[in-house]
Amino acid sequence: MHEDRFTAPVGAFTRNVPIRFSHCDAAGIVYFPHYFDMFNGLIEDWYTEELGFDYAELVMGSRTGFPFVRIECDFRIPSRMGEIIALTLLAERIGRSSLGVAIVCHRDGFERLRARMVTAMMSLETRKPVPIPPPLRAAIEAYQRRTASA
Amino acid sequence: MHEDRFTAPVGAFTRNVPIRFSHCDAAGIVYFPHYFDMFNGLIEDWYTEELGFDYAELVMGSRTGFPFVRIECDFRIPSRMGEIIALTLLAERIGRSSLGVAIVCHRDGFERLRARMVTAMMSLETRKPVPIPPPLRAAIEAYQRRTASA
Amino acid sequence: MHEDRFTAPVGAFTRNVPIRFSHCDAAGIVYFPHYFDMFNGLIEDWYTEELGFDYAELVMGSRTGFPFVRIECDFRIPSRMGEIIALTLLAERIGRSSLGVAIVCHRDGFERLRARMVTAMMSLETRKPVPIPPPLRAAIEAYQRRTASA
Amino acid sequence: MHEDRFTAPVGAFTRNVPIRFSHCDAAGIVYFPHYFDMFNGLIEDWYTEELGFDYAELVMGSRTGFPFVRIECDFRIPSRMGEIIALTLLAERIGRSSLGVAIVCHRDGFERLRARMVTAMMSLETRKPVPIPPPLRAAIEAYQRRTASA
Repeated sequence: MHEDRFTAPVGAFTRNVPIRFSHCDAAGIVYFPHYFDMFNGLIEDWYTEELGFDYAELVMGSRTGFPFVRIECDFRIPSRMGEIIALTLLAERIGRSSLGVAIVCHRDGFERLRARMVTAMMSLETRKPVPIPPPLRAAIEAYQRRTASA
Repeated sequence: MHEDRFTAPVGAFTRNVPIRFSHCDAAGIVYFPHYFDMFNGLIEDWYTEELGFDYAELVMGSRTGFPFVRIECDFRIPSRMGEIIALTLLAERIGRSSLGVAIVCHRDGFERLRARMVTAMMSLETRKPVPIPPPLRAAIEAYQRRTASA
Repeated sequence: MHEDRFTAPVGAFTRNVPIRFSHCDAAGIVYFPHYFDMFNGLIEDWYTEELGFDYAELVMGSRTGFPFVRIECDFRIPSRMGEIIALTLLAERIGRSSLGVAIVCHRDGFERLRARMVTAMMSLETRKPVPIPPPLRAAIEAYQRRTASA
Repeated sequence: MHEDRFTAPVGAFTRNVPIRFSHCDAAGIVYFPHYFDMFNGLIEDWYTEELGFDYAELVMGSRTGFPFVRIECDFRIPSRMGEIIALTLLAERIGRSSLGVAIVCHRDGFERLRARMVTAMMSLETRKPVPIPPPLRAAIEAYQRRTASA
């Protein structure tokens, strides 16, 4: 498990998460499914706080879901109770109804784990993929541009 | 399910929790075991931020646990995705190694649910109850005094 | 934490649950919110397998929910990874739209924890309580009679 | 989301998992982190029931952990409350202290999702990788041989 330096691009959406008792297993480190739960929370906050599209309204109001199509995750450094980790979201690839994001978990300038996740936008009524609406697409593309590392 | 007004005592430890997608069930409301997880998080933060005893250090360093002995909870108003609920902790009764707290979940001045929970302080090595150390006891009693409603 | 002997009434609905890595905290014992999740699973299975009313169909088909109104739980003996615990459901009180059950967690004839839980039957469409339908009520009452300890 | 036929190799370790209320999100389908929790449970049962190495004893007795190093997962067909899904474990690659497994979730002969996961065997005391002990390695290799598709 080699360690990698990580510095989030300027303007990238980053949130801190405290590692709680409930996240940790009998070894005192985060039980891995909890990371995916944190990632989903980060994506929610990114939609609501960064892109300006209220996530709860998208799901409960517009009846739109964002199921995962593919997930990859590399775990490098475990996290322990009482630590505060940072999660940074990077937009990777926007398709017609799919969106690829990377989420990097880091602390003190070191990358701890990195996930690449593809979601598809779906109607909860028809259970079919729906195209990402142009205003949302524009917001994601703007985010992508302003967080592209030089 | 009648509604009750609730105003937290001045100085009471209160934290806001956003209701996330992951908290909600097929009915779009919080699946109840998640509340207990939120309560445990509130207690952790209360120890660390209000009482000045680092919870992670108590558990991982001093090998002290705080298992629950008894829980009562009345659910009045369900909470939905996208809402932000407030959780307030009130100290009720301090025994030799036990501590009773009430946690009130409220929003917009209405009580949504209220739990009364008794924890026992326990050594993780011997699995036996241990007396609450005097400095921690003093901190809890001071909190109790300064949050006692007039 | 005194220990109590427990013998399930003949015919009472009992399921075994293995304590998994994921249930356990940094102390190697079950993190308490997982018990409530197990209890909900037991209630689901009781509806489906014992009463003959498919729980998933009640929720997703008939759009009926069973939110908890009140929960009480006494924790006596902690459970550790690798143990298999038994959960027994006893019907306590049937109201117009409410149902009180007791769930006893036991192993080797000793009670480990006991919860008393009241649920209300609710329409997921109107969010109002609905009366328990007569066939379901009859099934619950029959269960109550055949598991009443002499 | 194209559908793939899947037939488990003869002798492959397969367990059924009922999709419960608690697994499902506001869309009535499994919230994805729960799959990873199910996968961990399958791996536990595979060690204990198929390989003959008690997982709880490995963790709590021998103080050995199996943290994940890398996970990949493709989601094809969502699962709904009330369905029973089958999970099959295939051993892929055994390294000095690492083990790669594939877990296929299927139902009615169709693959619903497939994960490839690499774990490393680690001492919970030293936090360092430890070589897979020869008897465990032999058991995994034997499983691999007897489940290799012709």
